[in-house]
Amino acid sequence: MRYRATIAYVGTFFHGWQVQENAARTVQAVLEGAIGRFLGAPVRLHASGRTDAGVHADGQVAHFDAETFPPDAILSAVNVRLPWDVRLLGVAAAPGDFHARSSASAKRYVYRFSRERVIPPREALFRAPLSPRADAGLMASAASRLAGVRDFFPFSTAGTETETTVRELFACEVAESGPAIEIRMTADGFLRGMARAIAGTLADVGRGRVPPERIDAIFAARDKGLVSAKAKPRGLTLEKVFYPGEPGAPLPGPPAVR
Amino acid sequence: MRYRATIAYVGTFFHGWQVQENAARTVQAVLEGAIGRFLGAPVRLHASGRTDAGVHADGQVAHFDAETFPPDAILSAVNVRLPWDVRLLGVAAAPGDFHARSSASAKRYVYRFSRERVIPPREALFRAPLSPRADAGLMASAASRLAGVRDFFPFSTAGTETETTVRELFACEVAESGPAIEIRMTADGFLRGMARAIAGTLADVGRGRVPPERIDAIFAARDKGLVSAKAKPRGLTLEKVFYPGEPGAPLPGPPAVR
Repeated sequence: MRYRATIAYVGTFFHGWQVQENAARTVQAVLEGAIGRFLGAPVRLHASGRTDAGVHADGQVAHFDAETFPPDAILSAVNVRLPWDVRLLGVAAAPGDFHARSSASAKRYVYRFSRERVIPPREALFRAPLSPRADAGLMASAASRLAGVRDFFPFSTAGTETETTVRELFACEVAESGPAIEIRMTADGFLRGMARAIAGTLADVGRGRVPPERIDAIFAARDKGLVSAKAKPRGLTLEKVFYPGEPGAPLPGPPAVR
Repeated sequence: MRYRATIAYVGTFFHGWQVQENAARTVQAVLEGAIGRFLGAPVRLHASGRTDAGVHADGQVAHFDAETFPPDAILSAVNVRLPWDVRLLGVAAAPGDFHARSSASAKRYVYRFSRERVIPPREALFRAPLSPRADAGLMASAASRLAGVRDFFPFSTAGTETETTVRELFACEVAESGPAIEIRMTADGFLRGMARAIAGTLADVGRGRVPPERIDAIFAARDKGLVSAKAKPRGLTLEKVFYPGEPGAPLPGPPAVR
């Protein structure tokens, strides 16, 4: 039986999603341990994608195969076996061909900045500091230049192995609320490091260090040297993974030539 | 020179506010260490009151004496020496007779419950679970019976040493927002365990286990046996300490006969 799990975690105290050889505390390892103890058998989780160390998730999705149990029983029994910083939000039976990564049509990340002089501890794990003078309007202007079907190679981490570095960024929106500035990015896929490279570059635009037009120059020159340093992991949260035919999924544009 | 510091902390990983003999990680010990390293001399912090292990603060207040420094310099230099879960929100010069505990005229605590089946990890440190069927209206009805000048002895932890157990509870309000139920309590002082005993009793009212009229019976009988178990520390936050003549301070009622 195939199951689909929706998962939330505070990434701070994990070495990222993926199981590592060195027995590091990873989200996947902790979840596989708890689900395996419930099932009485080893289990392998397949996520929509990895998240880096320190990055959070409000709605990561993973699938796994196991013998038949009521999904609600799995949810309750596994959650009591988990540490406070990771939870199953939902478990459902899924079609046999459901695959958390390859079935996904889009993902939404949010990056949270705070312009407060002192970020309160209860927010500190989830927001990165930004200058009190940072200009959200400039950042929004730069963000609007990012959307579309683009070769995001300049925003990817060196060494990324992928068939193509073209992705469709459906939306990149900057929202301002008091001292907070949040960047929401929805794309059909994210290259390694892409969300944090976008956030870091928009932060430099907000600080007035680079103009919004820099975005056009980055795409035109396909030059990683024009992209700012990646923003810190702590500000990044994987909010949602979209699957075809589900409510809220972004409408893709015309097929890209890849 | 006397300074007044406003302090926020996530209480989860601290053994409460107060320095202990056994070198436990307490908020006071961590702050005294960081401030002392900046000053180059030992320093003693005097808080408005202790908070128990696991209890949070958004606006704890403490005073300390040190040689003259610009308060802003103390703020910046000390914050970079602090772990993520405690921060100075503000430092100001204070009159020589300012005393964080004895000058305080009131304190406000908030207790947060969540009726969600699964509390997301990012909220899990700050909310205690409550049955999805808990009734906020019943809780509000009980809460309104608590306000006033009362002998809160039944709501205090056994062994409390205090001159009088009479306190004025200026307000006890229950607010509902989606699955969240928050109880805000403002009083001229809180006995040991009082905020959590009130929250625990109101939770039992919400669950339908005891009627709102139980509050009247508790005061009439002065009986600790009628009070429910204290709610968990994680849901409790010291929001604000009030001092006379400052904006927002609750207006005390007529002087109580104590």
